[in-house]
Amino acid sequence: MIVDCAIYEGGRRRNGGVDLHDAYSACRRDGNFAWIGMYEPTEEEFDSLRREFDLHPLAVEDAIHAHQRPKLEVFEGMVFIVLKTARYVDPKEVVEIGEILIFLGADYILTVRHGKASALKPVREALESEPELLKHGPGAVLHAIVDRVVDDYTPALEGLGVDIEEVENEVFSRDRSNPAERIYRLKREVLEFNRATAPLVEPIDRLARGHYEHVHPEVRAYFRDVNDHLMRVHEQLESYRDLLTSILGANLAQVTVQQNSDVRRISAIVAIVAVPTAIAGIYGMNFEHMPELGWTFGYPLVLGVMVAICAFLYRFFRRAGWL
Amino acid sequence: MIVDCAIYEGGRRRNGGVDLHDAYSACRRDGNFAWIGMYEPTEEEFDSLRREFDLHPLAVEDAIHAHQRPKLEVFEGMVFIVLKTARYVDPKEVVEIGEILIFLGADYILTVRHGKASALKPVREALESEPELLKHGPGAVLHAIVDRVVDDYTPALEGLGVDIEEVENEVFSRDRSNPAERIYRLKREVLEFNRATAPLVEPIDRLARGHYEHVHPEVRAYFRDVNDHLMRVHEQLESYRDLLTSILGANLAQVTVQQNSDVRRISAIVAIVAVPTAIAGIYGMNFEHMPELGWTFGYPLVLGVMVAICAFLYRFFRRAGWL
Amino acid sequence: MIVDCAIYEGGRRRNGGVDLHDAYSACRRDGNFAWIGMYEPTEEEFDSLRREFDLHPLAVEDAIHAHQRPKLEVFEGMVFIVLKTARYVDPKEVVEIGEILIFLGADYILTVRHGKASALKPVREALESEPELLKHGPGAVLHAIVDRVVDDYTPALEGLGVDIEEVENEVFSRDRSNPAERIYRLKREVLEFNRATAPLVEPIDRLARGHYEHVHPEVRAYFRDVNDHLMRVHEQLESYRDLLTSILGANLAQVTVQQNSDVRRISAIVAIVAVPTAIAGIYGMNFEHMPELGWTFGYPLVLGVMVAICAFLYRFFRRAGWL
Amino acid sequence: MIVDCAIYEGGRRRNGGVDLHDAYSACRRDGNFAWIGMYEPTEEEFDSLRREFDLHPLAVEDAIHAHQRPKLEVFEGMVFIVLKTARYVDPKEVVEIGEILIFLGADYILTVRHGKASALKPVREALESEPELLKHGPGAVLHAIVDRVVDDYTPALEGLGVDIEEVENEVFSRDRSNPAERIYRLKREVLEFNRATAPLVEPIDRLARGHYEHVHPEVRAYFRDVNDHLMRVHEQLESYRDLLTSILGANLAQVTVQQNSDVRRISAIVAIVAVPTAIAGIYGMNFEHMPELGWTFGYPLVLGVMVAICAFLYRFFRRAGWL
Amino acid sequence: MIVDCAIYEGGRRRNGGVDLHDAYSACRRDGNFAWIGMYEPTEEEFDSLRREFDLHPLAVEDAIHAHQRPKLEVFEGMVFIVLKTARYVDPKEVVEIGEILIFLGADYILTVRHGKASALKPVREALESEPELLKHGPGAVLHAIVDRVVDDYTPALEGLGVDIEEVENEVFSRDRSNPAERIYRLKREVLEFNRATAPLVEPIDRLARGHYEHVHPEVRAYFRDVNDHLMRVHEQLESYRDLLTSILGANLAQVTVQQNSDVRRISAIVAIVAVPTAIAGIYGMNFEHMPELGWTFGYPLVLGVMVAICAFLYRFFRRAGWL
Repeated sequence: MIVDCAIYEGGRRRNGGVDLHDAYSACRRDGNFAWIGMYEPTEEEFDSLRREFDLHPLAVEDAIHAHQRPKLEVFEGMVFIVLKTARYVDPKEVVEIGEILIFLGADYILTVRHGKASALKPVREALESEPELLKHGPGAVLHAIVDRVVDDYTPALEGLGVDIEEVENEVFSRDRSNPAERIYRLKREVLEFNRATAPLVEPIDRLARGHYEHVHPEVRAYFRDVNDHLMRVHEQLESYRDLLTSILGANLAQVTVQQNSDVRRISAIVAIVAVPTAIAGIYGMNFEHMPELGWTFGYPLVLGVMVAICAFLYRFFRRAGWL
Repeated sequence: MIVDCAIYEGGRRRNGGVDLHDAYSACRRDGNFAWIGMYEPTEEEFDSLRREFDLHPLAVEDAIHAHQRPKLEVFEGMVFIVLKTARYVDPKEVVEIGEILIFLGADYILTVRHGKASALKPVREALESEPELLKHGPGAVLHAIVDRVVDDYTPALEGLGVDIEEVENEVFSRDRSNPAERIYRLKREVLEFNRATAPLVEPIDRLARGHYEHVHPEVRAYFRDVNDHLMRVHEQLESYRDLLTSILGANLAQVTVQQNSDVRRISAIVAIVAVPTAIAGIYGMNFEHMPELGWTFGYPLVLGVMVAICAFLYRFFRRAGWL
Repeated sequence: MIVDCAIYEGGRRRNGGVDLHDAYSACRRDGNFAWIGMYEPTEEEFDSLRREFDLHPLAVEDAIHAHQRPKLEVFEGMVFIVLKTARYVDPKEVVEIGEILIFLGADYILTVRHGKASALKPVREALESEPELLKHGPGAVLHAIVDRVVDDYTPALEGLGVDIEEVENEVFSRDRSNPAERIYRLKREVLEFNRATAPLVEPIDRLARGHYEHVHPEVRAYFRDVNDHLMRVHEQLESYRDLLTSILGANLAQVTVQQNSDVRRISAIVAIVAVPTAIAGIYGMNFEHMPELGWTFGYPLVLGVMVAICAFLYRFFRRAGWL
Repeated sequence: MIVDCAIYEGGRRRNGGVDLHDAYSACRRDGNFAWIGMYEPTEEEFDSLRREFDLHPLAVEDAIHAHQRPKLEVFEGMVFIVLKTARYVDPKEVVEIGEILIFLGADYILTVRHGKASALKPVREALESEPELLKHGPGAVLHAIVDRVVDDYTPALEGLGVDIEEVENEVFSRDRSNPAERIYRLKREVLEFNRATAPLVEPIDRLARGHYEHVHPEVRAYFRDVNDHLMRVHEQLESYRDLLTSILGANLAQVTVQQNSDVRRISAIVAIVAVPTAIAGIYGMNFEHMPELGWTFGYPLVLGVMVAICAFLYRFFRRAGWL
Repeated sequence: MIVDCAIYEGGRRRNGGVDLHDAYSACRRDGNFAWIGMYEPTEEEFDSLRREFDLHPLAVEDAIHAHQRPKLEVFEGMVFIVLKTARYVDPKEVVEIGEILIFLGADYILTVRHGKASALKPVREALESEPELLKHGPGAVLHAIVDRVVDDYTPALEGLGVDIEEVENEVFSRDRSNPAERIYRLKREVLEFNRATAPLVEPIDRLARGHYEHVHPEVRAYFRDVNDHLMRVHEQLESYRDLLTSILGANLAQVTVQQNSDVRRISAIVAIVAVPTAIAGIYGMNFEHMPELGWTFGYPLVLGVMVAICAFLYRFFRRAGWL
């Protein structure tokens, strides 16, 4: 589906509706460029674009089927970029990964979005209010999109951060809980998120170093800034990974302690009860000569002894930390 | 065993049966090349090829005995490539590793397959329907084979992915199960699979960067695409490895909890039963002066007390989470 | 908030109050430079500086909002440096991370501090007492600040070191304690601290190698020294990380042993008490023909046997290490 | 001890006994070279060689005392190589590490062997039957030796592989076993083996790339092959290391499960027995008014109830998986 | 404290006492150099040296306060080297780290030692007996010192190795022991030792490659040898680190097994004793109609049954491995 198709002349959007054919011809003129935005396009929708801009069939195939690694590839006269978008879905504690694929030529930029995250409409609106930036050509659009995608990593990262803190509290709380599954699922998300972002570091760095002609030198400093944010995301994810490994170990210790202390307490109760049972057993023996049995206060005395021993054991176990 | 032997003239297969000697002479002509496919050949079967194409004895030895690391080696006038094929055998949860070894010259390509995975017949048929591609010479065949081999990694990877999900569910289910062995076996497969694919990354990258003369510049972009798929396989395997390590740890926590909670419950039953035993013991003592024994309702009263205490203990243990 | 604004002429501070406009004009003169210090400035406070020194908008935005990665960036005619400051807050066992951002030009240095750590006033005073150093221009100021920041890592590092030793003693003491949470929290701090310092290594190294023109060659050797301290911090943190992982494992062993030995002791008590209970049960049976029951010393004899068996069991369990 | 001393003229061994002095003079002639093989030589035995070939004192010291890291060093006019040999001693499950040190000059090769592994006699015999190879000079001998040493790693590797499989079976069998020690010892062997082989990768790679003049270009391809085998050994060892770490974790899970299930079963027996004990205690009470005691079938009824309860508990525990 | 001050003329020590001022002037002459050795000098003691040899204030500060990372720095006309010395203190199982700092100029070498390890007196004596070496100037002295320091790592390494073997035996012995603390402390020592030696690898390598003019080419091969020893120390330490991590895991398995088997045995005793208790309880019931009670041999029969059941259980538990 073609979402929007616009021509920018000297940084300003040409008024009125523009169809693809207008775009093809208009963007050839100096200082002009076209930005055509698509959302999960079909092969047919892409066909005219492919022919007009002479796009490489491999890049086109990638754009239609998505599920690529983040990458930046150079074909003659064209740069092809794959970005992964991320959106945190809280109730499921899942990072949903989408994809934006960009074809960047001297006088055009084609954007293909898959999945829900990082809509490009606000990016377009923000850019259109800054003609100075748009004058730098499609490279400025590329920057704005990459910037947006990387900025959108932050809420996903924070969502994970909040969940990790929750899981920490769960692990170290006094409740009898075993959040091993939750820890594991979070780790899984962190790994997947990292796989979506880590391969981007190197291409963005190359953009920042100005290896590509379609990117105006003015824009390079901005890519450096994006790269910096990306590095922060990457470092944070590495740190999350390490933390989740540690917390899995800590959880095992907590669970072992909790479980064992329960068994210990129950055993202590059994031990305390066993003693009066033994004493009662003794006075339940049928020997003919057991002087205590004839004593008037034998019974209450023995009861007293039982209570005393139980009380003593209780205090002893308490002090030993067994109860 | 020589499976197929064909001559391609300007991208089209020469009709009719071709024997080895035709191939030797025909491929010398401009624009022609020969593709000779073998399956687990013997030394004798290889002998004529070796002499005709002046193959390096080390490469020939590798091709016959297989069990090589994935690699790309350059001998004068020839590139020798070893690929590992993968096939997922589901009931055994095993990744079966095979091998394809390729000799690539200016006007010939020899392919030697070992093991069951990644048959080359469909590759040949697909190529023969695209003469435009075949015109680029044996390098195009090389690409088609590598592409096929790497594409065939995907189902193996997915098979492992499904098994990992199953094992996750098993670990975190409420069933009393200990899938440590299955986790370990999966990890073993992941490591072996990685050993079969990781060394390929660098040679494919070199192919994509166009270091070899036998590979037509047009084909290079396609190798870049293959390299990308390979990287994805590699990253996914690294991620599986990490996940399986985590799940082994999580499994230990789950198993500890499950096992301990069983012991705790049984101990709680013992503790509950111990109390009426103790009381009964007391009233089984033979003291002469035990007033309760003479009471008309002493017996039911004591029974009631026993039941009450057991009920209380039961509720108390329940609330403490011990039952 | 602008904290201090001074002009240095040939290494000496110009007397009397200097406002921003004096600074702008004075620093243009040869051998002069301005040092303007700010603390968490607002956008408005920054505005005049931005225009006067023609600062890059991205750097300005970073300076105002902070929360950047440590980095060193070069804009035309200006070097922009982000440093992370660290302060150990003992009762909370937390490393508080602050930030200092520096704009370094040929004739000016702007410092922007966020957070509590590493106040710059003492740095300024120390520098002003060494005009020889200040003569080397703003690069000398940069060194003094970086040096201070890195020196301030040491107490934070030592604070962590002391806590790690405490936690070690806790783990290996005979007390029944499970410092898993504390270990985990320390690890978290170590990771965060490392994330604040590790990215600094490479930029400081570049400063030491003399890649930047604003830094006087004389000052470079000093940066090498700073880099060395930074490396030590980094290596120490890596070592802490490794130690904390080990101690988490050791803690699990300690806790398991402690917990199990409690259960073992309680079970041993139950086992010892069970034996007299069984014997008493035997002599409580109601058989008509039980000769022992008629013996005059039957009762004390049985009591003696009970005591003897208990004593034997006690010694036996002791020797087996079960009590 | 000097094991063998031979002169090769145009690839063929000169007939008859050759003593050291013949070798010194003969090898100077064009196309000739000497191969002198030693086994754990003393300083005295080495002295004449040292003077004649002008060997560097450091290399000589290494050759006599052995216990070096695998390495390749270039002294003027001479290459000095240290190889580690490996031999698997099965009953002890130990990889025995030996050492071969080689001095390679333009017209001589001196080999010094320490330890039992990788005897050089068969290497010499095999080479002498291929004069074509020997014509390439002492570099061909070097290759043959390195090839032999690296080939001999395979059986050692396989020995470890078999042991790892055995230990896997032991861990996952239903037997009550704890092969933690065996796992650990195997890991120790793997680490030591890796330490003996990993440093060799880089020098062999340099030999394959043709950095050294004494190695005939023809021989380089062969070194590439050796390097490949070495890489396979290295990757396999890395994989073993990873597997052994996993198996240590899996073993802990298995052992925990096995041990706990024993305790659970015994506790269940105690719980089942506790119930009839309690019931018997109740009917052992001495209340005057216990109507059941007077019933004719009271006794068998109670016995029946006891058996019924025990049977019920047994089935209940069975179903809960506690027995 | 100045320990020794000597002038070497053409490799031979000038006779008689030499004070600092003689040294200053004498070492300027061709072929002469001064070696001044200090032990933990104060700032005052250093002052004259600093002025005479024009030492960089940063290096001087380092030399007086020590506690530096191992490093090699070049100041104009001078190389400054920091070495860490190691000494194994057996009863405490601690590696004591000391420091040697060296100033190397064209005609002087100043050595500053801190801590107890690696005294330099024997190094000086050994060198003075080899004038040929000393002729190569202060670089030869540098080599001798570095060689000594690195050689002294070996006993420390061996001390750790012996302790690791002891701890292995402790872990896998049948004794009830939990050497978790000892393992952890050893790991701590290994990490600290590694931190003292690892940063040295790169500077020594640079010395071996001949980057520094003050080091005579002849001496470079010797530095290569030192580097090799250093690498061996480094690899061994890495291997120790890995082993200690494994042994911590193995220890957990051992301790779990040991602890659980104790609990299992005690529980089995309780279970065995519970059975006769239950039987005795049955015959202690007060039913009027219990025919067995009237049997003449009822009592011994029941006793026999009890013994038989206990014996049976004992054998059953034995066979099940529970006792």
